[in-house]
Amino acid sequence: MSEHTVSAYDQELTEIAGKIAEMGGLAESIVSNAVSALITQDLVLAQSTIDRDQRLDDLLHEIEMRNVQVIARRQPMGQDLREIMAATRIANDLERVGDMAKNVAKRVIAIDSDLKSKKLAIGVEHMTELALNQLKAVLDAFTRKDAEAAVRIRGQDAEIDAIYTSLFRELLTYMMEDPRNITQCAHLLFCAKNIERIGDHATNIAENVFYMVKGDHLLDDRPRMDETGVEDKESV
Amino acid sequence: MSEHTVSAYDQELTEIAGKIAEMGGLAESIVSNAVSALITQDLVLAQSTIDRDQRLDDLLHEIEMRNVQVIARRQPMGQDLREIMAATRIANDLERVGDMAKNVAKRVIAIDSDLKSKKLAIGVEHMTELALNQLKAVLDAFTRKDAEAAVRIRGQDAEIDAIYTSLFRELLTYMMEDPRNITQCAHLLFCAKNIERIGDHATNIAENVFYMVKGDHLLDDRPRMDETGVEDKESV
Repeated sequence: MSEHTVSAYDQELTEIAGKIAEMGGLAESIVSNAVSALITQDLVLAQSTIDRDQRLDDLLHEIEMRNVQVIARRQPMGQDLREIMAATRIANDLERVGDMAKNVAKRVIAIDSDLKSKKLAIGVEHMTELALNQLKAVLDAFTRKDAEAAVRIRGQDAEIDAIYTSLFRELLTYMMEDPRNITQCAHLLFCAKNIERIGDHATNIAENVFYMVKGDHLLDDRPRMDETGVEDKESV
Repeated sequence: MSEHTVSAYDQELTEIAGKIAEMGGLAESIVSNAVSALITQDLVLAQSTIDRDQRLDDLLHEIEMRNVQVIARRQPMGQDLREIMAATRIANDLERVGDMAKNVAKRVIAIDSDLKSKKLAIGVEHMTELALNQLKAVLDAFTRKDAEAAVRIRGQDAEIDAIYTSLFRELLTYMMEDPRNITQCAHLLFCAKNIERIGDHATNIAENVFYMVKGDHLLDDRPRMDETGVEDKESV
């Protein structure tokens, strides 16, 4: 490859990384707004969050198409190829993070009443904060090509799972205490699950960062647990 | 391209289609077994279903890697390129169908008691049958490159959504009738949602078949509704 070609190629990789960063920032903002809308029962914010998710879908298609063109034109090998494949997979995970947030926003509109319990709201907020921290940290690891950080981040998902399991039980308790809580709590069960799955997507991204840098798949030695109590060696 | 090259390329596309068919058959079998395990509370079948899902993940990685190699080697354009991109996306949807089934199987183990209601079981079975029919039909449309069938199949997802919404309400009613039903019904809510989402994945596949054949995205004129009652123009 001539110097000019290499430099143009580097430019392409930088542009792909920039698009991933744009998706990441947008996904974080959508998650944050969806959960704010849930806590404050802000129906206008919920609707605008639903509408903004479309941009993530558009960015995913743009990244997929661009990456295919780069592969066809450059025929990359080794880490270059892995970087493009990882970028495509990460874009898919970020698009799904947006879907999770959109689901929460839709349920804000379905619930359309104040949350029954301040304690529940705090639990949901705390889980969201952890999930957003994971997402930010893993996108940072992608930018820095930091495999060690990716491994560390993946290990932290257990904390989100534990909060989710405790929220799941608490929601069932509220349902049992008063049947009038059941409809709202059923929607909140799905909201909590959606946020827990944002943590799973951050974990997927961490695994792709590791693969990109090391060329090898992370061994899955951490059994994932959820409220079913059934061990699972991979993301659900 | 020489005749030899074209023929080798056709052979590669046929192999990719064969791998998609293998994933499709496996995904259908896993869904069917997961729901059988749920209806009959067969914990052994549930565990073997969870274990079999790994093969779908492996097939997805194999297809992704193979498709990237074909793009790098052949630099396909037009429908050839769209066929490979559609295959990659369809493989992703089929892997997620397996995840949905695995989630159901995990909840079988969490429930670990007979279903409270025969009527619920019939509803879940009926919804699964429709979802599996959609999945079979859309994979057939992929093989036949049949865009018209894809449009038709996409339109049929509304029936699955309607059954899901009715099951959601019924589950809430059981919860309200007797608090002892709440834990089981909470798990069944998630099972029903997982099956409903298999229909969404069939819809995604239909849209990719259309794109592959026509080179154009299907306009989304069918508002999707779910139990939140909030209209949504795309899959969740």
